[in-house]
Amino acid sequence: MSYSYETMEWSGGTDGHLRLIDQTRLPLETVYLDCLTAEEVWQAIKRLAVRGAPAIGVAAAYGVCVGVNQGQSVDEVCDYLATSRPTAVNLFWALERMRNAACQATASQADLGSTNPCPDHAPQGRSMVEWLLAEARAIHNEDREQCTAMGRYGADLLDNLPRGAGILTHCNAGALATGGEGTALAVVFELARRGKQPHVFADETRPLLQGARLTMWELMQRQIDCTLICDSMAAQVMREGRVQAVITGADRIAANGDAANKIGTYSVATLARAHGIPFYVVAPATTFDLSILRGAEIPIEQRDPEEITRGFGKQTAPAGARVYNPAFDVTPADFIAAIITDRGVVQPVSAPEVANTVTGNTAV
Amino acid sequence: MSYSYETMEWSGGTDGHLRLIDQTRLPLETVYLDCLTAEEVWQAIKRLAVRGAPAIGVAAAYGVCVGVNQGQSVDEVCDYLATSRPTAVNLFWALERMRNAACQATASQADLGSTNPCPDHAPQGRSMVEWLLAEARAIHNEDREQCTAMGRYGADLLDNLPRGAGILTHCNAGALATGGEGTALAVVFELARRGKQPHVFADETRPLLQGARLTMWELMQRQIDCTLICDSMAAQVMREGRVQAVITGADRIAANGDAANKIGTYSVATLARAHGIPFYVVAPATTFDLSILRGAEIPIEQRDPEEITRGFGKQTAPAGARVYNPAFDVTPADFIAAIITDRGVVQPVSAPEVANTVTGNTAV
Repeated sequence: MSYSYETMEWSGGTDGHLRLIDQTRLPLETVYLDCLTAEEVWQAIKRLAVRGAPAIGVAAAYGVCVGVNQGQSVDEVCDYLATSRPTAVNLFWALERMRNAACQATASQADLGSTNPCPDHAPQGRSMVEWLLAEARAIHNEDREQCTAMGRYGADLLDNLPRGAGILTHCNAGALATGGEGTALAVVFELARRGKQPHVFADETRPLLQGARLTMWELMQRQIDCTLICDSMAAQVMREGRVQAVITGADRIAANGDAANKIGTYSVATLARAHGIPFYVVAPATTFDLSILRGAEIPIEQRDPEEITRGFGKQTAPAGARVYNPAFDVTPADFIAAIITDRGVVQPVSAPEVANTVTGNTAV
Repeated sequence: MSYSYETMEWSGGTDGHLRLIDQTRLPLETVYLDCLTAEEVWQAIKRLAVRGAPAIGVAAAYGVCVGVNQGQSVDEVCDYLATSRPTAVNLFWALERMRNAACQATASQADLGSTNPCPDHAPQGRSMVEWLLAEARAIHNEDREQCTAMGRYGADLLDNLPRGAGILTHCNAGALATGGEGTALAVVFELARRGKQPHVFADETRPLLQGARLTMWELMQRQIDCTLICDSMAAQVMREGRVQAVITGADRIAANGDAANKIGTYSVATLARAHGIPFYVVAPATTFDLSILRGAEIPIEQRDPEEITRGFGKQTAPAGARVYNPAFDVTPADFIAAIITDRGVVQPVSAPEVANTVTGNTAV
């Protein structure tokens, strides 16, 4: 398995910029996008040139460096980037880490007794951007390591799958969605390395076709056996006995294990349940939002109707057609056989098990 | 509710031809296609310029007239048109009626004692094409009346739906799919006439988007309240409590009530079942194939992978991607709350009830 693509990277030195694959151009063209301003990073996230909860977090972290390089304050650029997409919690988590890093940078130069360090004064010695860039790189590196850990935990959990087992996935939860090998696909890649020869059924994932465009591309780049289907065919493929497990990523997971992910995931989970097929979610601990108890509290982004009515560059519905276009749905915890994290496996999926795995504490 | 389109019609006199809306051009253009040869009719069916089980039957009947006008024998043109699509049983049923009409035409001129009338000699007096055209028109008219009957039976059955109830449908089972008002949509139109103000959620229906292109177009033409969703959103809309009934058409129904319909229908039926929402099939008696006991015996057409990978003139998957593209799936009888036919309602859906309603006999 060899491949040659880097989802994103920091280009140049401290005064450099964020360079990322423009995922809207895949699979036809591998075009890199240079984001020289926070506005360009915001746009890249908004229009899904970079997407996937962990990847959004990493991109936003680098985006803070870009903005500060352009003269914006850390708070200013963090507040701004936070408005790019509402659902993926990793975005807010990464921005919070960048604010904290700035704070520490300031504190390291200020009176150690100060109780209110201001994050927007560049410290002497190591510059603010150096501090911020180090933090963004740390976030990126941790994300890589988390992907590796999730791949191993997942492959251990699915060790009883027969060789050549069918694995259905929805949207893209691969290297393109993270700073590393992916979440759901990290498990597939690890199973492949272990000689399990998984066969992946990739839902095309309307409206934006991340499954057809990105998951199929990644799988084919790595010579993983794969078949593309329309979202509406998942039930039929399950009924034909071709699917032994369903694995997806997540954009935000509540304290009880309810998991928000790409629209259609709840559909796939419901169909898996009806066919007696285990449904797994793979996500790093950073995707959990323990501040909310249930999935119903997760804000769901509504997107432009034209993603549906002009999705393929051609109008495919009557002018003026009313459209409903939620970007995500929430799969209830009790539909999920296990949540595979970088800190271990949450199984059964319940609030105490989530707390136990994610924070290392057993919740009451 | 006013509208102005005719799905298909015979244009001109006995030596005329079949004219039909090219449904591949909707909703952007209302272009009529003149089919002057049996080959053109075959192509129109194959590439879905005309689609929907009842409409295919009517088009094929007229297609026999076109072919005979061009000098082909009835058997020849029937055998040929039968190869256009394998799943919709109405196609074979209509062609059989045309063969029988030709047979009767011949017999009416031949020795009444003949036991083996040959269908390929034009009788004196009324010409063979006149006989055939009269039969095709009869099939068309009966189809119109069947649609009206299904609309009434269905609206009676759904009389307890609240005003403004949500009805989810998949693919297109409207006027464009029949010679009349449709099957599933005939019920919606009748509910609207009765002041029920139904709100239709139309699955876009990948890969060919009949829901987005055709169902939305028909509903908007008739001022029916409607919302377009991607197939993957049906589960979410159900979970939000917006759907009180699911209604679809069918392409072939086995003796036990198992119903083949557009790929994705089984998915929708499974999701409806999981959400406690009744799932109804609407189809004329001609859609039943009592020669087969179970849905597993229904042949399922596999279509071109490019319908998925290049659905709208743009490549949306990597070159060489493996694709699975079944055109239909089969919904098991026990997922179906009732089958609404032009001869009454099959409820519960079982072999005896099917026989009772469709043939008027109670099966053993």
